[in-house]
Amino acid sequence: MSDALGIALVGCGTVGGGVAEVLLRHRERLAQRAGRPLQLRHIVVRHLHKPREPFIPRELLTTDFYGVVLQDPNVHVVVELVGGTTVAREFVLAALAAGKHVVTANKALLAEAGPEIFEAARRAERTVCFEAAVAGGIPIIRALGESLAANQITAIQGILNGTSNYILTAMAERGLPYEEALREAQQHGYAEADPTLDVDGSDAAHKLAILAQIAFGVIARPADITRQGIDQLHPMDIRFAHELGYTIKLLAEAWTRNTTPPEGPRGVALHVAPVLLRHTDLLAQVRGAHNAIAVYGDIVGETLYQGPGAGRGPTASSVLADLIDLAVGRAQRTFAVARLWSNTDRGFVLDPPEQVHSRFYLRLLVADKPGVLADIARILAQHTISISSVVQHEAPENGGQLVPLVIVTHYAATGYFLDAVTQINRLSTVAAPAVYYSMGD
Amino acid sequence: MSDALGIALVGCGTVGGGVAEVLLRHRERLAQRAGRPLQLRHIVVRHLHKPREPFIPRELLTTDFYGVVLQDPNVHVVVELVGGTTVAREFVLAALAAGKHVVTANKALLAEAGPEIFEAARRAERTVCFEAAVAGGIPIIRALGESLAANQITAIQGILNGTSNYILTAMAERGLPYEEALREAQQHGYAEADPTLDVDGSDAAHKLAILAQIAFGVIARPADITRQGIDQLHPMDIRFAHELGYTIKLLAEAWTRNTTPPEGPRGVALHVAPVLLRHTDLLAQVRGAHNAIAVYGDIVGETLYQGPGAGRGPTASSVLADLIDLAVGRAQRTFAVARLWSNTDRGFVLDPPEQVHSRFYLRLLVADKPGVLADIARILAQHTISISSVVQHEAPENGGQLVPLVIVTHYAATGYFLDAVTQINRLSTVAAPAVYYSMGD
Repeated sequence: MSDALGIALVGCGTVGGGVAEVLLRHRERLAQRAGRPLQLRHIVVRHLHKPREPFIPRELLTTDFYGVVLQDPNVHVVVELVGGTTVAREFVLAALAAGKHVVTANKALLAEAGPEIFEAARRAERTVCFEAAVAGGIPIIRALGESLAANQITAIQGILNGTSNYILTAMAERGLPYEEALREAQQHGYAEADPTLDVDGSDAAHKLAILAQIAFGVIARPADITRQGIDQLHPMDIRFAHELGYTIKLLAEAWTRNTTPPEGPRGVALHVAPVLLRHTDLLAQVRGAHNAIAVYGDIVGETLYQGPGAGRGPTASSVLADLIDLAVGRAQRTFAVARLWSNTDRGFVLDPPEQVHSRFYLRLLVADKPGVLADIARILAQHTISISSVVQHEAPENGGQLVPLVIVTHYAATGYFLDAVTQINRLSTVAAPAVYYSMGD
Repeated sequence: MSDALGIALVGCGTVGGGVAEVLLRHRERLAQRAGRPLQLRHIVVRHLHKPREPFIPRELLTTDFYGVVLQDPNVHVVVELVGGTTVAREFVLAALAAGKHVVTANKALLAEAGPEIFEAARRAERTVCFEAAVAGGIPIIRALGESLAANQITAIQGILNGTSNYILTAMAERGLPYEEALREAQQHGYAEADPTLDVDGSDAAHKLAILAQIAFGVIARPADITRQGIDQLHPMDIRFAHELGYTIKLLAEAWTRNTTPPEGPRGVALHVAPVLLRHTDLLAQVRGAHNAIAVYGDIVGETLYQGPGAGRGPTASSVLADLIDLAVGRAQRTFAVARLWSNTDRGFVLDPPEQVHSRFYLRLLVADKPGVLADIARILAQHTISISSVVQHEAPENGGQLVPLVIVTHYAATGYFLDAVTQINRLSTVAAPAVYYSMGD
C-alpha cells in the first residue's frame, strides 16, 4: 500500500459517514478507477464514544486533528466536512501548511475565505478540490473548469438551493402556503431546523460566488451579491405568474454585459432572487429538491446540468471524484493552471446591480378607482420603462376597495425601475409596498 | 513557443473550420486555460484551392498527411475530423504510430475499431480523446469517466440523435407526418441528404457502444445492439401514446440486470428504440435537435446532462476541451487509468436482448367483432404477460370493420413478449403485423 493515497476525514456526520462508507465498501472499485488504492487512515470526530454506523472501524476514529492527522506522513489528503467558517478554516489552513491536499464541500468557507485558502495552497504547493461545494452530485465545477474550458462563459442560471426549490414546487403545484411547505421540507429532511441560510438566498449566493470565480475570475464576497429569498413570497404572486405563463424559481444568476466598450473590462452581474421563468424553460421544470444549472458558453451555446443538489450519496460521489482526481494526478494539474482566487486579471469586473437590465413583474395593491393605472403608468413612462402586459381582475362584488394590479415591464435598468417603484409606493392610491421580481427572459 | 502544443487538423469542413476558428481567434484565452499555447500548425485538406473561410491561413493548408504532418516533430496532436471508418482509421493508426496523440469526433470509428485503436495508442504510449464523439457539446465522456468515477453506473438513457429528436418533436407537437418532418429537418440542416444512419438508430447505437465501454467495460460492436429507428413510426402511435400520458423518444439505453447471481458477471443490455416516456420524465421534455443523457450511478443517484448534440460550435467546444486536457496533461493520466477497449474485466457481460424485462406498448389493427380481445388477452396470459391498460375507441359508424386496439403490458421478458406477438399476428382477426414499443418506466 506504499502507493496508496492516504486520506483523513474531518467530520463523520451524514456526508462524512457517506464518504467513509464508499471508501471502505468499494476499495477495489476505487483502486481500479484511481490507478492506486484510496486508503482511509483517520476519521476526526468530536466524541470518540458516540454511537456510529456499524461499518465505521473504531480504530480509525480520533479527536486529535493536529496531533494525529497532521503528524501522519501517510495522510496525503484532508477531507474537510465540518462546515462553517471558523474551525473549518483553521483545519484547512493547517492541513495545507502541513503539506496535505484538501478536499472540501464547504461553500461558505470558499465564498468567504477563497483568496486566503488558495494562496495558502499555492504557497504549500498543494491542491484544493471542491466539486461537492456546489450543487451536490452535479459535476458543475468540472464542467466549468475543464469541459467548457475553451469557452468564455457569458451567463449562468442556477437552481442551487434544493430546500427553496422543494418549497416553491410545493407552493406552486399544491397551493401550500410558505410556512406549510417549509414545515413539510423540514419533515422530509430537506430543510434544517433553522432554514434561514437556505430560504433567504445566502446559501445560493455562496455557491454563485464560487461559480463566478471559475467562470469570470471575479472575487465576489457574499456581501457583493444582491439577494432576495423566498421567505417573503406570497402565493398570490405564484398564481399571477402562472396566469401569465411563468413559474417562479429561486435563481442564482451571473451574466456578462455586452455594452461595455470592448477595450475595457467587461461587467458581470450577480444576483440571487425569485425569478419568473416561462413554463417551457427547462429550469422551470426542475421540481422538488433537485438542483440544475444552465451554462451559456460563447462557443458551445447552452448546456444544462441537473441532479440531486445535496444529501449523503450525491455529496459523497463528488468528494470521491475529487479524491480519484488527486490520486490520478489530474486535480494537481487543473489547480496549477486554473489559478483560482488569485490576482490573475481575467478581464471582468463586478457590475453595480442597479445597472443590470431586466424585465420586471410588479404587483401592487391599489384602490379600485379611476386614474390609478394612469398614475402608475405615467411614473413608469417618466423612467423610460414601457409596459409589456397588465393583469387586473374585477374586484369581487362584496370585496373591499383594494385590488391587486400586476404589471410586467419591458427591459429596464434596475436602478430606474427601483426609482419608479419608490415613487409608486408614495401614491396615496397604493395601499402596500410594491412587490417585484425580475423575469428570466 | 517551444512550450506550445502543436496541432494538426485533418478535415476542414463545418467542424474542422470551427476548431480552426477557435484556435486562431482565441489564442490568448486558450493559452491561459491550457497553461501553454495551442499552436495550429497544419490543416490537411483534399483540395488546396477550394474557397475557404477568410480566417484560414493558406500556408497552413496541405494535402500531404503522411509527408507533412507526420514528419513534423512539433505536431503533438492530430485532430481527426474526416469521418467514416476507412481513411480515418488509417490516419489515426498512422498518427499514433508516429507518436502523435489523437483527438477524434468519429463515433463510427470508435464503435467499430475501438479495441484496435486503443491498443495501438497504448503501444505507442499516446492518448486518444473523443469527447466530441458523443452528444456534441455535452461533456458526457468526462462525466462518466471522471466526475462519476466513484460510481458503478447502473443505467444510461440518452437522446443521442438530434435529427431523430427534431423529427419526433415536429411530429408530436405539430402533427406532421414523418416524411414532412424529415424534409423540414433537412431544410434546417439537422438532417443529411441521406438520413439513414440518423433515423434508423445506427448513429445512436455507435454512441451507445462508446458510453457502454466507459460505463461497463463491455465491447459492444454495432451489430450487438438491437436497434429500431423512427422511420417506421406512425403518427397514430404518437397520438395513442399522448392519450396514455406518454411521449415517444428515440432512446439509446443501457441498463444492468439485478437478477444475475452476485458472484457471476452482471448482465448489461443495450438497445436503441423508440420508447414511451411519461410526459413528466425529464427526457420527454427535450425538444428539437437537442441531446440529453440521464445517468444513474449507485452512489449519486440520477444526474442529467443536456445541450446541443451536434453542430460547429458545440463539437468544436468539445474538441478544444480535449486539446486543453492534453496540453494540461490531464488527458494522458485519464487515458492511462481508464484502460478503455482493453481486456480489463470490469465484471459485466452483454445480456441477450430477449432476456431484458420491459413494459410494452402494443398496437394492433383488429376486426371489430366479439372475441377478438379475448383471443389476444389469452395469448398474452399464456406467456405470463399481464395487461396494464387497454385503449379501444368505438369504430366510426361509417368506418370499416377494422379498429386500432392498444394494449400496455406490465413487465415482461422481451423474448416471451415477442413470442406472444408472433402468435397474435397469426390470428385471423388481426389485420396487420403488430406494432410495439417498450415503455421507459
